[in-house]
Amino acid sequence: MHPELVDGLAMEAKTKIIFYILDGVGGLPMEEGGPTELEAASTPNLDSLAKKSICGMLDPVSPGITPGSGPGHFALFGYDPIETIIGRGVLEAAGIDFPLEDGDVAARGNFATLDKNGLVIDRRAGRPSDEKNRELVEKIRRVLTPQEGVKFFLETVKEHRVVLVLRGEGLSEALPDTDPQAVDVPPLDPRPLKEEAAKTSRLVKGVIEKAREVLAQEPQANFLLFRGFAQHRRFKSFQERFKIKALAIAAYPMYRGLARQVGMDIYPPVETLDEEISALEEKYADYDFFFLHYKKTDSTGEDGNFAAKQEAISTADAALPRILALEPDVLVITGDHSTPSLLKLHSWHPVPVLLYSKVCRPDGVEAYNERACLAGGLGRMATVNLMPLALANAGRLAKYGA
Amino acid sequence: MHPELVDGLAMEAKTKIIFYILDGVGGLPMEEGGPTELEAASTPNLDSLAKKSICGMLDPVSPGITPGSGPGHFALFGYDPIETIIGRGVLEAAGIDFPLEDGDVAARGNFATLDKNGLVIDRRAGRPSDEKNRELVEKIRRVLTPQEGVKFFLETVKEHRVVLVLRGEGLSEALPDTDPQAVDVPPLDPRPLKEEAAKTSRLVKGVIEKAREVLAQEPQANFLLFRGFAQHRRFKSFQERFKIKALAIAAYPMYRGLARQVGMDIYPPVETLDEEISALEEKYADYDFFFLHYKKTDSTGEDGNFAAKQEAISTADAALPRILALEPDVLVITGDHSTPSLLKLHSWHPVPVLLYSKVCRPDGVEAYNERACLAGGLGRMATVNLMPLALANAGRLAKYGA
Repeated sequence: MHPELVDGLAMEAKTKIIFYILDGVGGLPMEEGGPTELEAASTPNLDSLAKKSICGMLDPVSPGITPGSGPGHFALFGYDPIETIIGRGVLEAAGIDFPLEDGDVAARGNFATLDKNGLVIDRRAGRPSDEKNRELVEKIRRVLTPQEGVKFFLETVKEHRVVLVLRGEGLSEALPDTDPQAVDVPPLDPRPLKEEAAKTSRLVKGVIEKAREVLAQEPQANFLLFRGFAQHRRFKSFQERFKIKALAIAAYPMYRGLARQVGMDIYPPVETLDEEISALEEKYADYDFFFLHYKKTDSTGEDGNFAAKQEAISTADAALPRILALEPDVLVITGDHSTPSLLKLHSWHPVPVLLYSKVCRPDGVEAYNERACLAGGLGRMATVNLMPLALANAGRLAKYGA
Repeated sequence: MHPELVDGLAMEAKTKIIFYILDGVGGLPMEEGGPTELEAASTPNLDSLAKKSICGMLDPVSPGITPGSGPGHFALFGYDPIETIIGRGVLEAAGIDFPLEDGDVAARGNFATLDKNGLVIDRRAGRPSDEKNRELVEKIRRVLTPQEGVKFFLETVKEHRVVLVLRGEGLSEALPDTDPQAVDVPPLDPRPLKEEAAKTSRLVKGVIEKAREVLAQEPQANFLLFRGFAQHRRFKSFQERFKIKALAIAAYPMYRGLARQVGMDIYPPVETLDEEISALEEKYADYDFFFLHYKKTDSTGEDGNFAAKQEAISTADAALPRILALEPDVLVITGDHSTPSLLKLHSWHPVPVLLYSKVCRPDGVEAYNERACLAGGLGRMATVNLMPLALANAGRLAKYGA
């Protein structure tokens, strides 16, 4: 895929595209010869659509590479997932709608419990309530005055989780996690990993020290651990690149954050898939591209709960008629990666994909699952190619060359 | 594939990977409608393993490109076969365990017979014995004193074959072959192909001249022809890149040489496949990655002997249970390229591949051959992706991105 080529060919049209993303949808059999979650699930609507669609298998990054949600979604959005590396801190800030500016450094933080010897004994400080979190954040904010020309923002995410943002000149993301990701060990030192990170290191140490003083009397949340230091860079937006007005609908903050990174408009938080589809119906006239994110296929896989993932897939299938009733010109159904219940983790396995449009070239595939899509007309390709293909099917890509 | 990405994700684990490489295994039917060598061979063990594996087709370099053994193996080892070009001279030197240093220029040499008019009449000088070869090499060495700060090494390979190595400053590989690869024509001139090769050209001419003087009285081996001038560069080692301890087991010197190029440990020369597998058993506890090379599938193909290649494949199949008895976490079976008996040459045809692990996603493939593997879950991909995939299946690649 040559992003510049595609960008240069994109043109406006009156067509509509829906990306119905079933997070982590690809799976594995639990035992030799058994079905995958998709094969076990009841998917009459997906299978019926597969018969009219072109199917295939997608590698989010490249064969063997297990993507995090960031690279997985960037590839879906048509951004090279290797060029476009986004750190956890930036994702977390974007996920709570924090308006990051170019050059900001963000980190995810946890309230944690240190014992008298300075060892981490609870990385989540007993999971405080959101209210308690806000109360502690408010106390710490009061002492986080600007230092060396840099401003600090500390924001509640939920429970034990916060986001720290540094804004000013000369910042760097080259800091290690201070969260040891283990208990009965001390927090790690935010030493600079590169020379240019000396100032940021100094500032973060200051934040940790001040927070410790403020939290000294807290029985549980007496310390802040940080991880995923990441600097925000602005990417050329989705709308700018593809000349299409895009709306993201996602129940989980991280996925709204990912869509915000490429400049999509964001529908306010909703909880259920039904609510997500109501949002789609409500805004259908106002946008041309819809990123509709369904999380449960991933979270059940990460829990290792085959039956629950199977059920989540059936739920996604049952919602399909409402989406089809909108008569989108292009409907793409796939995932950002596989999350086999067997592994309880994201995995490297390719993801089945279905692309429906009136001008797709149908293949012989009669079901949407890992085995059936192998024989699909898309073959096996990198996910980053999906967006140009969707644009083409929507009559939104001009001819290349004379 | 992005080598730097994979290298950054590789991590240590207690898992074991075997690459069972059947050199040149892919073939063609001898007549329309007939079976390929793989289809004709008796392969009950390969077919039974294919049912539990993920299969597919590999392009060693890219569609239409016929690889030599160098690019074919580098791709298998996870090195970009285009970035990682290794000349014949370097391979030849590596194959006889000559300790090349960075910047050395090596060439393969042949004792040859020139007639009175200076025409090549036998490119192999009647295939002298190894002993005769050593005796002549010893004589020539005595006159090869350092010139312009460059040292010369002349080494016996076997029969008519030698290796010449130049070591010093300002050397270049930009020289043509002096071997005309034909008889009744004069040897070619090692003129510099680039300006920077002027010194090397001068030095090689000197070597040829001195050898001619030394060999003047020889009835047959009265001249040295050279080809495959190649400069040695050190690559980042396999162990360094993939954090895995690797052993190469190969009966033929060139394949040991290839493995040595990427820094694998090398098992001492053995003759038969049975001995190779005994070596595998012997060293199984000491290494995590095994490159097990079987030559006969290629040499029989190059001979154009369909029946012999079929037999060689059956032999490879019969050896499989001993390999499986070791219970490797990942077993990959494929070739470095195809060598159809019909063509008597390496070819561009993709190579069937089988990857077995407990967490591979099985497809419907029920046999290991060119036709069956077409429907495999790996689809068609470049060989260089195989190594990351094997590492992923062995739990040796971390997740990419947050």
